[in-house]
Amino acid sequence: MRSHTYYESMGAARIMAQIIDGKALAKEIKDELKTKIQSYINLGNRAPSLRCIIVGEDPASHTYVRNKIQAAIDVGIDATTLKYDATLSEDELIAAINSLNTDNNVDGILVQLPLPGKMDERKVCNTVAPEKDVDGFHITNVGQLCLDMPTFVPATALAVVEILKRYKIDTFGRNAVVVGRSKNVGMPIAMMLHSDGKHDSKLGMDATVTVCHRYTPAEQLEFFCRNADIIITATGVPKLIKATMIKPGATIIDVGITRITDEQGKTKLVGDVDYEEVSKIAGAITPVPGGVGPMTVAMLMHNTLQAAQRLARKN
Amino acid sequence: MRSHTYYESMGAARIMAQIIDGKALAKEIKDELKTKIQSYINLGNRAPSLRCIIVGEDPASHTYVRNKIQAAIDVGIDATTLKYDATLSEDELIAAINSLNTDNNVDGILVQLPLPGKMDERKVCNTVAPEKDVDGFHITNVGQLCLDMPTFVPATALAVVEILKRYKIDTFGRNAVVVGRSKNVGMPIAMMLHSDGKHDSKLGMDATVTVCHRYTPAEQLEFFCRNADIIITATGVPKLIKATMIKPGATIIDVGITRITDEQGKTKLVGDVDYEEVSKIAGAITPVPGGVGPMTVAMLMHNTLQAAQRLARKN
Repeated sequence: MRSHTYYESMGAARIMAQIIDGKALAKEIKDELKTKIQSYINLGNRAPSLRCIIVGEDPASHTYVRNKIQAAIDVGIDATTLKYDATLSEDELIAAINSLNTDNNVDGILVQLPLPGKMDERKVCNTVAPEKDVDGFHITNVGQLCLDMPTFVPATALAVVEILKRYKIDTFGRNAVVVGRSKNVGMPIAMMLHSDGKHDSKLGMDATVTVCHRYTPAEQLEFFCRNADIIITATGVPKLIKATMIKPGATIIDVGITRITDEQGKTKLVGDVDYEEVSKIAGAITPVPGGVGPMTVAMLMHNTLQAAQRLARKN
Repeated sequence: MRSHTYYESMGAARIMAQIIDGKALAKEIKDELKTKIQSYINLGNRAPSLRCIIVGEDPASHTYVRNKIQAAIDVGIDATTLKYDATLSEDELIAAINSLNTDNNVDGILVQLPLPGKMDERKVCNTVAPEKDVDGFHITNVGQLCLDMPTFVPATALAVVEILKRYKIDTFGRNAVVVGRSKNVGMPIAMMLHSDGKHDSKLGMDATVTVCHRYTPAEQLEFFCRNADIIITATGVPKLIKATMIKPGATIIDVGITRITDEQGKTKLVGDVDYEEVSKIAGAITPVPGGVGPMTVAMLMHNTLQAAQRLARKN
């Protein structure tokens, strides 16, 4: 595949960026997982299993969960949804999770966020047994990630890493900017990007990393972005990243996803990047939709197979 | 105290940086702790207690432990050292830690690193009960730190934060560079510097943070440092940070400490910063020795009082 160093050799010529096809890449990964899962079952194991808990009626959350379940079934994972009314108490939710924690037929547990009402999401995330926490939200898994130990990496962060790897984007000693410091996305991405590639997790990418966020002054955001070989943005602010902020040939990974209404009154999904203009300058770019999103679901399936394999080895 | 914004108002005039007196600041903090501990005891509590485990005969480690014990005794902490031969097995060490974990007369446990031989330091650090882990090395405490939750912060990282606070160095929306990505120093400092000040830990400083390390090209290190309002360096590479790399008025916190032999054949301790030259450009600077070092010991005492208070509330 074409890398951004290739682009640089083209000088100032305006060529369109390589479009990172997250949908195709996700299909590739799911096909690989399907084969691996079939082999795993052929060795005498039961199919990896995933349980998704959803509380309340948020339509977007239900769509996300349906997509995850469908992807799981496609690759051969035994996946079901546990649906609860928004009236469910926190104690009842915790009891439901504990029951899945001790169920030897369950490998992966996922609690769809956000939770309704005044539930303590941190407490709920910490209730999921760390070895079944395929979302990587348990405090122990966060600690392991930050110490470069093997763990479950939150699927969106892992999707970004996997895109960089599969598209052979060089990160070693390169400048990366992460825009957004959320604990599920920006933080783990920045952690893996700057970490030592020789450490146990093998996810370290040895880049020089700048974390920008809502309090980074606009001119400083531009300063850091213009010097970046890789920009990863996860803010939910449409058109935050403009063509004038991009170093020619840079790789742009857009994790943002916002529903907007266009001039014709139609709603559509957009990312954080002014895609039309930035794609004329960048070396490679993810579209929204069809970039990081489908990859996130694929990486959740990857985590579920990991959970099954680790639990099988333990038992 | 004079801030670097004051310096900027001086224009290009060359004035010497404010020297951050870590020794005096540490004394100030220890005096405050002494008063707090006396009040705590006056309320009917026993004195906070700290147990330092040291294995083997490394002279530097013994010096560090002696300094910690002395500081603890000075502030009214009941502190003792448990010394073991280098022949101690990992299982015996773990048994010793477990015995302290369950001892209601022990609030803080510290295992001096490095451990000799082939001991698994990660396993040992994870054996210390998280609520007694005054070094903040347990995976749960690392996870909490990275999620901006109240926790024990590694003392050196906390020392840096405390210096910035006490010297009223503005961090909000400022550019900070952290040089070095170690898990006990650079990583937690970068985490607190970039995090949201509104989160539970109240340690977030809302700076834009760039993490540089051994694979950051020299010219890029210079690029980021020259744009930084705050530089925190923790590499152990003498004179890595030179005057040409400093923005006039910047704050320089030097965590590095290296023993070198000078031209006269005398050994002395130096930091990462070319102190003599950089102090002509910087707004504020920590010397080595006498900067971060004494503050680290003071913050360990702070953590020990915290441990005692939290455990007292629980019992």
